[in-house]
Amino acid sequence: MNNKQLTIIKIGGNVIDNSANLHQFLLDFTALPGDKILVHGGGKIATELGESLGVEAKMVEGRRITDIETLRIVTMVYAGLINKNMVAQLQATGSNAIGLTGADGNIIKAKKRPVKEIDYGFVGDLDEHSVSAETLDSLLKAGLVPVLCAITHDGDTQLLNTNADTIASSVAVAMSQLYETRLVYCFEKKGVLKDVNDDDSVVREIKTSEFEALKADGTVQGGMIPKLHNAFEAIKKGVSAVYIGKANELNELAGGTFGTKMNP
Amino acid sequence: MNNKQLTIIKIGGNVIDNSANLHQFLLDFTALPGDKILVHGGGKIATELGESLGVEAKMVEGRRITDIETLRIVTMVYAGLINKNMVAQLQATGSNAIGLTGADGNIIKAKKRPVKEIDYGFVGDLDEHSVSAETLDSLLKAGLVPVLCAITHDGDTQLLNTNADTIASSVAVAMSQLYETRLVYCFEKKGVLKDVNDDDSVVREIKTSEFEALKADGTVQGGMIPKLHNAFEAIKKGVSAVYIGKANELNELAGGTFGTKMNP
Repeated sequence: MNNKQLTIIKIGGNVIDNSANLHQFLLDFTALPGDKILVHGGGKIATELGESLGVEAKMVEGRRITDIETLRIVTMVYAGLINKNMVAQLQATGSNAIGLTGADGNIIKAKKRPVKEIDYGFVGDLDEHSVSAETLDSLLKAGLVPVLCAITHDGDTQLLNTNADTIASSVAVAMSQLYETRLVYCFEKKGVLKDVNDDDSVVREIKTSEFEALKADGTVQGGMIPKLHNAFEAIKKGVSAVYIGKANELNELAGGTFGTKMNP
Repeated sequence: MNNKQLTIIKIGGNVIDNSANLHQFLLDFTALPGDKILVHGGGKIATELGESLGVEAKMVEGRRITDIETLRIVTMVYAGLINKNMVAQLQATGSNAIGLTGADGNIIKAKKRPVKEIDYGFVGDLDEHSVSAETLDSLLKAGLVPVLCAITHDGDTQLLNTNADTIASSVAVAMSQLYETRLVYCFEKKGVLKDVNDDDSVVREIKTSEFEALKADGTVQGGMIPKLHNAFEAIKKGVSAVYIGKANELNELAGGTFGTKMNP
């Protein structure tokens, strides 16, 4: 176990698309003690810019395709508009934020997804060698707070669109070699709910050994299954704990009552 | 005089807008020995994106105005599209590039230009306290190559559009406290020309004491006067030498025959 502690927090569209939510989140983020890394997804702005430019979202069998035009748009919106405005806001709240793609400092090198049944276009997949923990560590040691958007590169000039949840867990696993690392996913619910209709029925803690039973009794179902599966995979690979909860309750993380905590 | 050497190179639209020129420039940039910082301007892409989105370039008395819509566009294009593609290309050539705005790591804090006769909108001006040499130094020490675009911030959440020539000279002056710093401006000509119609009549060297005489005899005229004035200002404030020349001759910098060299 490492002594230095690191918290990696991932936010998505439900925080980014609402400026009041985002502002409050960034205040809470800055208030969290210790070393931190923020990972953010895209939100509606990329879709809106695409529509303004007449670039339609391309879907194949329900999956979004990143063609060259879409890649241009997400590079502009994720790495430019969203990332840099978030950095400027974090700077104003007292976080010495530095906004990055995976190309910057070669922090995340991805592989373009191979074309099988579907050609996903310029989408990058990560493996256990993708993240440069050393470079992220040197930024943290310089007192900086990395803010990562969902753009990576292949090391051979090509930028790639990469799932932000995957970036967060890959970064957490890589950093767990150097830090006692916890990973926090902010989403639209307060956590895993015992009763899906009761927002206050949050299951506070799930151990790896309990996961199968919770799937069997239906507490964990649908889209939560892959989410929690990824969380327990990250734990298996060295991450100390994974939290899933609502962004506007982030301040409760310090007190240990944020959302659902997944333990080894 | 400091022992560590640093080269700061500024490129503009005539390099950025031509992918073959840009590719060759980035190879030459990577081949230059020693610590380096690249500063880039905008080019045509921002204007083209503005036109596609129906945002017209606003000019008042021949000066471009950065309204809120234009700021969104330059943030997307400079900090997103251009900067990140340049970083991905530099990574492929062997430079461990990291793309930054002035907001990142609070590297360049500007002041919004006060409204006098003209309201320039979201334009940032720099002063002698704007650049954090310490943070840039920590990135260089981590083996990174900063690539700065022409976006800064005011420290109070606002991004600002800032002249790339000014960024280059302000960064050079600030870094000259820590490094023996030379500043290189790439532009469309081979340097200061003795005969404006003869591209090979480059004046190899100008000393501060010779500047007035060259203005008087007409060798330096028109748009070159403010350019060279800024160069000699930078030298007065600690920069070792300033070069002005053509990007496609950058490899000659190592041999000392690149463009026109301004000396103390």
